[in-house]
Amino acid sequence: MTTQQLTVQIRKKKSFLCIGLDVDLDKIPKHLLEQDDPIFAFNKAIIDATHHLCVAYKPNIAFYEAYGLKGWMALKRTINYLNENYPEIFTIADAKRGDIGNSSTMYAKAFFKVLEFDSVTVAPYMGKDSVEPFLAFEDKHTILLALTSNPGADDFQTQEINKHELYKEVIQVSRSWRNCSNLMYVIGATKAEHLAEIRKIIPESFLLVPGIGAQGGNLQDVCRYGMNSQIGLLINSSRVIIYASDDLNYATEASKKAKELQQQMQNILEK
Amino acid sequence: MTTQQLTVQIRKKKSFLCIGLDVDLDKIPKHLLEQDDPIFAFNKAIIDATHHLCVAYKPNIAFYEAYGLKGWMALKRTINYLNENYPEIFTIADAKRGDIGNSSTMYAKAFFKVLEFDSVTVAPYMGKDSVEPFLAFEDKHTILLALTSNPGADDFQTQEINKHELYKEVIQVSRSWRNCSNLMYVIGATKAEHLAEIRKIIPESFLLVPGIGAQGGNLQDVCRYGMNSQIGLLINSSRVIIYASDDLNYATEASKKAKELQQQMQNILEK
Repeated sequence: MTTQQLTVQIRKKKSFLCIGLDVDLDKIPKHLLEQDDPIFAFNKAIIDATHHLCVAYKPNIAFYEAYGLKGWMALKRTINYLNENYPEIFTIADAKRGDIGNSSTMYAKAFFKVLEFDSVTVAPYMGKDSVEPFLAFEDKHTILLALTSNPGADDFQTQEINKHELYKEVIQVSRSWRNCSNLMYVIGATKAEHLAEIRKIIPESFLLVPGIGAQGGNLQDVCRYGMNSQIGLLINSSRVIIYASDDLNYATEASKKAKELQQQMQNILEK
Repeated sequence: MTTQQLTVQIRKKKSFLCIGLDVDLDKIPKHLLEQDDPIFAFNKAIIDATHHLCVAYKPNIAFYEAYGLKGWMALKRTINYLNENYPEIFTIADAKRGDIGNSSTMYAKAFFKVLEFDSVTVAPYMGKDSVEPFLAFEDKHTILLALTSNPGADDFQTQEINKHELYKEVIQVSRSWRNCSNLMYVIGATKAEHLAEIRKIIPESFLLVPGIGAQGGNLQDVCRYGMNSQIGLLINSSRVIIYASDDLNYATEASKKAKELQQQMQNILEK
């Protein structure tokens, strides 16, 4: 999917919501545990109930790996289900990978070819030759960690390097990498005013913003400082939506929470 | 496995060699491709032929993920084979993971519990709360990326932050994290003299050193600057050993290459 197509979907659905599929078997409704593949059963119900309210889904790969082969099978069934039934959805493998050239190519193959995601999150620490192999895939997107929403972001990301914060250096340096137009960025929403400065460096790029909902962060402020003429934002919410209820009505309740966020987004888009 | 036990193994085998199991189906001997699980068949033969010459194996997880479910099954069979037949071997999941607290716990479970590795490589970019969940596992080791051996290491890792290079800041800050005694560090061997300065910050820690062999780097220099009283070094070599031959004799040839490195290490240890 191209970013132009993504913007078309956002305008059509009046939503730039991304729903995080962080499926924890300790948190999903108990009756699902009797099924052969409870993770996929849960995802399918959530997706069917919310796909018209969001433009993207983001499985966090950690939650699938933790269940071994069963987790990987559930992940594969989930991405296949999305691609077959909702091809208009932008899919994000939240994998935070990053390794040297040849290994990065292998990771890119895993997420772009074997699993057929539209995009994957990647860590910048190893630099250019760890990210360019991902960027080489046409119509696929590499979402680079820049400023994350956890407290540990202050350990290194906001420390000064070359006269500005490390996360700004990461963003700036990444603009010189081959096929950098395939880059998007993870920007935590904990300090929305950071977005204004980030937009000076990357006015055009899509930003994936976690930290709305369970992690705090204000939607109005994020949009004020971060939105561009192509919208340019994907706002992620995971637990607030998918764990809205742990009862039989979990999909309906998830859809209500997604609808609340979609409505807020619609209000902002129609202003 | 504890680091004390690892040092005992090093002294016993007169080797601090780690063999990287980066299995690429395009590079292994063609006759293996007829087998049900060519990746595991290759690993098993390499392990059986080299286990007495090394103290650690390091599958690079990218190469397994790229083959989807079959890759994960091969990885599981490989780690099970190692744990059942060669429990004295230190096992490293070269996964370069790193995510926020709850997700990091999930990754830690994947590699320490589901796959039962002794250690996993982790990226530092997201800071303390992305690494501490790994450190919480007793007798398991978290190998933090500090200075890698690829050209992109100069993009951020060697840039100045707080009056020294970022990789030194990473090492220094990590010493304040809970259970930091479970940390080891990835230090590329491209500039061995860096090791002298690193040893001033972390005299006791084990260092995993890639970049000997295919990536260049000099064993003598690495040992001169990096060895401590407990040895404190694991030197990784992957392609030079496992792809020594792509013919029927591949395991024997791999064992010869491993023996060459082990001999060099023995000479250094006996000096």
